[in-house]
Amino acid sequence: MKRIAVLTSGGDAPGMNAAIRAVVRKAISEGIEVYGINHGYAGMVAGDIFPLTSASVGDKVGRGGTFLYSARFPEFAQLEGQLAGIEQLKKHGIEGVVVIGGDGSYHGAMRLTEHGFPAVGLPGTIDNDIVGTDFTIGFDTAVSTVVDAIDKIRDTSSSHHRTFVVEVMGRNAGDIALWSGIAAGADDIAIPEKEFKFESIVRNIKSGYAKGKNHHIIVVAEGVMSGEEFAMKLKAAGDDSDLRVSVLGHIQRGGSPTARDRVLASRMGDRAVELLRDGIGGVAVGVRNEQLVESPILGTAEENALFSLTDEGKIVVNNPHKAGLELYRLNADLNNLDIKFN
Amino acid sequence: MKRIAVLTSGGDAPGMNAAIRAVVRKAISEGIEVYGINHGYAGMVAGDIFPLTSASVGDKVGRGGTFLYSARFPEFAQLEGQLAGIEQLKKHGIEGVVVIGGDGSYHGAMRLTEHGFPAVGLPGTIDNDIVGTDFTIGFDTAVSTVVDAIDKIRDTSSSHHRTFVVEVMGRNAGDIALWSGIAAGADDIAIPEKEFKFESIVRNIKSGYAKGKNHHIIVVAEGVMSGEEFAMKLKAAGDDSDLRVSVLGHIQRGGSPTARDRVLASRMGDRAVELLRDGIGGVAVGVRNEQLVESPILGTAEENALFSLTDEGKIVVNNPHKAGLELYRLNADLNNLDIKFN
Amino acid sequence: MKRIAVLTSGGDAPGMNAAIRAVVRKAISEGIEVYGINHGYAGMVAGDIFPLTSASVGDKVGRGGTFLYSARFPEFAQLEGQLAGIEQLKKHGIEGVVVIGGDGSYHGAMRLTEHGFPAVGLPGTIDNDIVGTDFTIGFDTAVSTVVDAIDKIRDTSSSHHRTFVVEVMGRNAGDIALWSGIAAGADDIAIPEKEFKFESIVRNIKSGYAKGKNHHIIVVAEGVMSGEEFAMKLKAAGDDSDLRVSVLGHIQRGGSPTARDRVLASRMGDRAVELLRDGIGGVAVGVRNEQLVESPILGTAEENALFSLTDEGKIVVNNPHKAGLELYRLNADLNNLDIKFN
Amino acid sequence: MKRIAVLTSGGDAPGMNAAIRAVVRKAISEGIEVYGINHGYAGMVAGDIFPLTSASVGDKVGRGGTFLYSARFPEFAQLEGQLAGIEQLKKHGIEGVVVIGGDGSYHGAMRLTEHGFPAVGLPGTIDNDIVGTDFTIGFDTAVSTVVDAIDKIRDTSSSHHRTFVVEVMGRNAGDIALWSGIAAGADDIAIPEKEFKFESIVRNIKSGYAKGKNHHIIVVAEGVMSGEEFAMKLKAAGDDSDLRVSVLGHIQRGGSPTARDRVLASRMGDRAVELLRDGIGGVAVGVRNEQLVESPILGTAEENALFSLTDEGKIVVNNPHKAGLELYRLNADLNNLDIKFN
Repeated sequence: MKRIAVLTSGGDAPGMNAAIRAVVRKAISEGIEVYGINHGYAGMVAGDIFPLTSASVGDKVGRGGTFLYSARFPEFAQLEGQLAGIEQLKKHGIEGVVVIGGDGSYHGAMRLTEHGFPAVGLPGTIDNDIVGTDFTIGFDTAVSTVVDAIDKIRDTSSSHHRTFVVEVMGRNAGDIALWSGIAAGADDIAIPEKEFKFESIVRNIKSGYAKGKNHHIIVVAEGVMSGEEFAMKLKAAGDDSDLRVSVLGHIQRGGSPTARDRVLASRMGDRAVELLRDGIGGVAVGVRNEQLVESPILGTAEENALFSLTDEGKIVVNNPHKAGLELYRLNADLNNLDIKFN
Repeated sequence: MKRIAVLTSGGDAPGMNAAIRAVVRKAISEGIEVYGINHGYAGMVAGDIFPLTSASVGDKVGRGGTFLYSARFPEFAQLEGQLAGIEQLKKHGIEGVVVIGGDGSYHGAMRLTEHGFPAVGLPGTIDNDIVGTDFTIGFDTAVSTVVDAIDKIRDTSSSHHRTFVVEVMGRNAGDIALWSGIAAGADDIAIPEKEFKFESIVRNIKSGYAKGKNHHIIVVAEGVMSGEEFAMKLKAAGDDSDLRVSVLGHIQRGGSPTARDRVLASRMGDRAVELLRDGIGGVAVGVRNEQLVESPILGTAEENALFSLTDEGKIVVNNPHKAGLELYRLNADLNNLDIKFN
Repeated sequence: MKRIAVLTSGGDAPGMNAAIRAVVRKAISEGIEVYGINHGYAGMVAGDIFPLTSASVGDKVGRGGTFLYSARFPEFAQLEGQLAGIEQLKKHGIEGVVVIGGDGSYHGAMRLTEHGFPAVGLPGTIDNDIVGTDFTIGFDTAVSTVVDAIDKIRDTSSSHHRTFVVEVMGRNAGDIALWSGIAAGADDIAIPEKEFKFESIVRNIKSGYAKGKNHHIIVVAEGVMSGEEFAMKLKAAGDDSDLRVSVLGHIQRGGSPTARDRVLASRMGDRAVELLRDGIGGVAVGVRNEQLVESPILGTAEENALFSLTDEGKIVVNNPHKAGLELYRLNADLNNLDIKFN
Repeated sequence: MKRIAVLTSGGDAPGMNAAIRAVVRKAISEGIEVYGINHGYAGMVAGDIFPLTSASVGDKVGRGGTFLYSARFPEFAQLEGQLAGIEQLKKHGIEGVVVIGGDGSYHGAMRLTEHGFPAVGLPGTIDNDIVGTDFTIGFDTAVSTVVDAIDKIRDTSSSHHRTFVVEVMGRNAGDIALWSGIAAGADDIAIPEKEFKFESIVRNIKSGYAKGKNHHIIVVAEGVMSGEEFAMKLKAAGDDSDLRVSVLGHIQRGGSPTARDRVLASRMGDRAVELLRDGIGGVAVGVRNEQLVESPILGTAEENALFSLTDEGKIVVNNPHKAGLELYRLNADLNNLDIKFN
């Protein structure tokens, strides 16, 4: 392979720039030319493609966001979109592609591979909800941002004996809530993966204040419900404390990536180029038990593929991502909560 | 004066602990004993009063919030409340009080002084809206937190070519919005002190993207309107960009104080004790042109008092706080905005 | 087990407080009383032992250092010291101990267990050089601090086209240098685990500037040599760039622990109490491939023990810690360095 | 004036980029073209000059260092160097220059003005040692970095009951030491502007530990002596505590500027362009009592000039910068130190 390209797709995440940098630097050290594609698949179709050099990624390892811009582009699910993209790849002499993004982006990578342009997916999202990996690029940074925010909120909640509902991101996954809740010493954590009763939380709040605590912090994953709705239900369940809601919002998507995210992104970018160099596409890189692994994007469950096609042509996820309930139990332990684990 | 007390009142602010520490340390070095009062005036009335030592404030200079807790206590506006408080002061042998809080708290300090217990006010709030001072304790930290948040939001807005409306605190004052907007390189700033047209902002947005900018950030002071309402009005005025709203919320009240806030708080706490030591009460400490000053809390405008009583007994503010429009003009300059200054 | 104690020993590390908090909270939720021992084994012998409650560890999860203080106490290697310690444990009714510290501390834990007081070791050090675990409590925070410092140093080195030798901690291990070097985008990394030639580094420096780079940063683990010595050898090997040395020093030991360190410390503290609850001592908790594991501190290699005794009574390490050379190779790739891996 | 240029000179400082950005943006809004000069006066002479647009400074307000690079260039003190520079200015059609740097850089600005090219100086240095201003661009950020470092050092010093000598920058000025020492709650501060006795400091150390303090931190300005030398003299004067030295070094020159530095830099850059627009050169902008002021660089003391020439042609400083001893006294108060102020 003489020339490859790299793009970012879907929601942006801290560490994407570090991954791009690793792709560029590794490609160069392998004697492969590397191009950047702006705005994800949309830019591929539009031909927004240009050469990258070692200097292009200088001073980028610590920058948040993605300097190649990102976008969602549902049209790439259609054959027409794919062929338009491939025409551009041909025009620029590009033989392989690294796609950094969510699992939506992986399907595009699969299609490119099927059309003869090997493409490798890297998991880039703060939500940690991508199949085939324990951790995504950006997750550690988002958790760090949330913990920093809760540390600040605790200052003011302690000063006023207040209860705070802190709504955090994560789409349908509770990972950000779990990790940040444990790390920030939250009193309760609500995630979509585990049922809970508002009455139990109200009981925790009351018993905490009765024991002399000066604040109570509840981290709620957005996948459960909005912070406002959560607060109303708490009140309805009998909470009579001075209750506030904080929705952390988009600050969770930005910021300079943590050291851990930078290292993970660098490792994954490096591996993606090794795979392309060896002619391998249609796979996504992940980290499992601290080791880099790659999984076929599409195939059978026996092949360990991330997705399979049913006979009716529907895509099914073979091993859906699950938040680690071990952490949920840990939080219950640390806060002496009365939660049943069957 | 042999024994004084210190309390925090109203909303908490980063740097309150640094001010308390300075009061305690300075009092000790002057041979004056010092007591802490928990929960502001409410704690005074309830007798939640206890001795503080040099060690009580060890390792507190950099902590957010207030370890003496804060509260609003409107009952202290009534004579009954004041007498109950004074009874407790007498019981504990306290002869003077330092009150750290908003200008509401200053009135309590005035009353105590009138009753023969000299009290000195220090301006503690993130909003920078207290009369008699250029800067309040906590303002620099809040601005710093907002700038940090906007820096993160810019990462993600640049990655996606998005427009962000960032709602910041400040009650009726635009100071947090102005300072953080300038510092974060915001494209537009909306404050209550200066009229603006949504049409102009929409024009800025369009011309910015037309020139190739990859994001547009508007900082809106909560005193103008909510971020959500602002966004709706932008849309109504013709904005067709990818618009998002971020409400920074309570993270702005917390966090370790900046170096500048710690120094300001230390200087003010030191001065408050000097005043009490010299038998002076009924004044508030401020910083004017980098110099510490003190102003009578109540009196005539000629006396430079912060507040005056009308013949009908109404309180009037003699020199209401005003956000510096110089910064507003500066931002217009830096963003080439078409704003009229008459 | 009705009552346990917890202590910190050796060099302090960020996250030790989070581990203590987890031990206390988990013990309480298991119905076990928990005592704190100040100043490590020295405090045990001196009887500096006191009860801890849930409130004792409130607001501690994010604090750097250790509120139980730490110390080195070689006397505990002697039987006399151990017996004196045990007498104090008996006096306070303590039946088991959690020891958070380096591997020196583990030997004390082993001795206590042999004397009938089960003790569990947790790996607390920034150096990441403890056997039996992939990561130690404090390592991620130290790496984060170093990366933050290098990010700052890069600003000034880029402004002046300077070469910086940054000396980082790690004792005999190169882990801090490797992780922070990758994450900060260093140009060269020197660690004790891998030989290198000063001539090669000088060649990298020259070729970098020749290609238009505006700075060159070399991270040197203290286990290699001091930064000053390294710089002199670079000069001797022909470097003629504007070379500076920065020794990061003790800032690497402090600071609020990262989210990751807080979670790791919480998990390990929780597990330590589970082990004591089940009567298990003489083991150290580690994390291997993201899973918590426990290893016998002393025993045979077949038992997977961390240390073994030779027939002559010498202690040998069964599986000495090794920095991951995968990262070393990664950095060579990313910087196109000419390094041989046999 | 139709076209101006901007350069940075001397040591770099955080906020220089924010000042450049303000110069560029303000010039554009005044209809003036603006060029950048790389590497300070050296680049001027070499003709390393290129046009800047609004986009050139996008996303630069929060970056540390200077993207125009900085350098020392003593040759510009000679007429020959000046003429070579002016030739380049003419060639590029540049009529005025903004110079951001230390007071050495001001002399170059004076020369350019004398040759008919009005030049305005802005004070950019972390050391806060420039005449004609209360605060320099970069000082607040350096203080903030030092405070953050001392906060970390305190963690580890408290854990081990250690005494730390922290050497900070500032050249011959004690400002960084004073501000950061107050803000970080240091126990002693040593600055070049105030004599002190090692015996007094040793007494403070001993009495602190005797009272139960768990650490002792001494901030030493580099203008006093090196941290190592300071520690040796402390030992010689009788200190027997566990004493360590930390030299903070170059991290103090980097980092994203604080909000305050960004605002100050923006205000000053804006003002510099206003002056050039009005044909004014040979002055330096400063901030005095929070107001922007400009002073003639060279002239008589009566004219309020920063420097005067003696009859022998020697340059004298009219009002040398002095660190505020008010802060020194404040620290003595807060730590109950026995220091004489005459």
